[in-house]
Amino acid sequence: MIIGFIGLGIMGLPMATNLVTAGHDVRAYNRSPREFSGTVADSAAAAVTGADVVITMLPDSPDVEAVVLGPDGVLAAAAPGTLLIDMSTIAPATARTIADAATEAGFRALDAPVSGGEQGAIDGALSIMVGGAADDFQAAKPVLDVLGSTVVHVGPAGSGQTVKAANQLIVAGTIGLVAEALTFLAAHSVDLEPAVAVLAGGLAGNRILDRKAAGMIAHHFEPGFRIDLHHKDLGIVVDSARAAGVTVPLGAVAAQLMGAARAQGHGSLDHSALLLVIEALSKR
Amino acid sequence: MIIGFIGLGIMGLPMATNLVTAGHDVRAYNRSPREFSGTVADSAAAAVTGADVVITMLPDSPDVEAVVLGPDGVLAAAAPGTLLIDMSTIAPATARTIADAATEAGFRALDAPVSGGEQGAIDGALSIMVGGAADDFQAAKPVLDVLGSTVVHVGPAGSGQTVKAANQLIVAGTIGLVAEALTFLAAHSVDLEPAVAVLAGGLAGNRILDRKAAGMIAHHFEPGFRIDLHHKDLGIVVDSARAAGVTVPLGAVAAQLMGAARAQGHGSLDHSALLLVIEALSKR
Repeated sequence: MIIGFIGLGIMGLPMATNLVTAGHDVRAYNRSPREFSGTVADSAAAAVTGADVVITMLPDSPDVEAVVLGPDGVLAAAAPGTLLIDMSTIAPATARTIADAATEAGFRALDAPVSGGEQGAIDGALSIMVGGAADDFQAAKPVLDVLGSTVVHVGPAGSGQTVKAANQLIVAGTIGLVAEALTFLAAHSVDLEPAVAVLAGGLAGNRILDRKAAGMIAHHFEPGFRIDLHHKDLGIVVDSARAAGVTVPLGAVAAQLMGAARAQGHGSLDHSALLLVIEALSKR
Repeated sequence: MIIGFIGLGIMGLPMATNLVTAGHDVRAYNRSPREFSGTVADSAAAAVTGADVVITMLPDSPDVEAVVLGPDGVLAAAAPGTLLIDMSTIAPATARTIADAATEAGFRALDAPVSGGEQGAIDGALSIMVGGAADDFQAAKPVLDVLGSTVVHVGPAGSGQTVKAANQLIVAGTIGLVAEALTFLAAHSVDLEPAVAVLAGGLAGNRILDRKAAGMIAHHFEPGFRIDLHHKDLGIVVDSARAAGVTVPLGAVAAQLMGAARAQGHGSLDHSALLLVIEALSKR
């Protein structure tokens, strides 16, 4: 299959490479030039001309809007009928706008953001949350199965981004709760390792305790997923909740704490460095 | 071993019964009379006279203070040297006060709150978080192993209660985060079951998604663990954090939401009914 791939960043490059390895003819474009085992195109238009499937993996909503809807963009250069799969994390409202414009122009469009990070991208083991028409999901599934181990259709256009936003809400909030618990326990001279073990084994158990608590106790904050990016995602959560008339009191506080971590200069650290904000707010 | 057991409530009765089954001579007291397979004592003093070990399982801090420190209480009636194990969930500061008074009077004292609920108590599969001296923990372990499957020494006197407080902080906050995520997803017409499956499989994964989300989606809120009790426990969390100079922004919001659930008349529902508060705050 001919796949136009736009965005060879930390996530996009290993994803595009996995598609090459799976036997696809991948024609990729990145704003700044990248080494890549498939074909390197010198423009987005060149990458998508003649493609059966176009995948975009870009930093933020305006990037995807520009690349898909802009002059010399995907809708201008690719053939109607082409399947567009945006795997960036962007606002659900933007995903719906793009899907509407694509449908209007005779394209098929899915929003399919991922979780699992760089390692998941390298291993082809991402979780992929897909919004759009059921037929288009079935058509995309063989391609997405190369990239992810969990590929789930969650509803109409925009739903993938909505589930990703919910994911980022829960992850940020859980990091915050674990940070508060660790600071609270340390202030009371509790032995943190057995405490984490017993917490992780009960109803308080979560993936942050399993994967991040040891690093948090040791103050090891190499990313992983950076504070800057999670801050961007929580902006999407709070805006989308507000637009839908949904109140997210814990999500809003988590967004404030993530913003504080960024303001304190921790933007390039792993999101678990939210602990530093709780410690700065406390006598630690 | 002769065990004096005070408090045959929803948790205490199956725990005391398991100790009888394990071959111990259990002499139990409850304020209102209960059917019990061991010996029923007609006062706390009668239950603990001649005991090797005394276990208390009571609703709140003042109950434990009265039973242990009061006239005709445990310290007055039991023999010095007796091992006291308070398994109630109470304030860490009260646990330390009781441990100090017990030590002063020549007793050995542990705080050993549990998680795992009524089913865990029935199955002898509780998680037990123990604070106190290491020697006393070793002495208590054979008895505690009858009651729990995870029995962990987490630090000096009061540490068990501190870990239990951290547990209740994380559990309440996680219920709140899942409630916000479900409300957000429903407002965006996302299919909730596949969405929960994909969230549960990634970094957002937690025990609330695993065990409570289906009931929350169906609005089934039979307890389980009641809002009223979790509200009490969050009072302990917020007070203990404040006393230690630790700031818990998410814990404080979770405590407010749990208080709101109680104020709205949901006190006798399962704590997952926190969802009703988020829905009442939103257009659902």
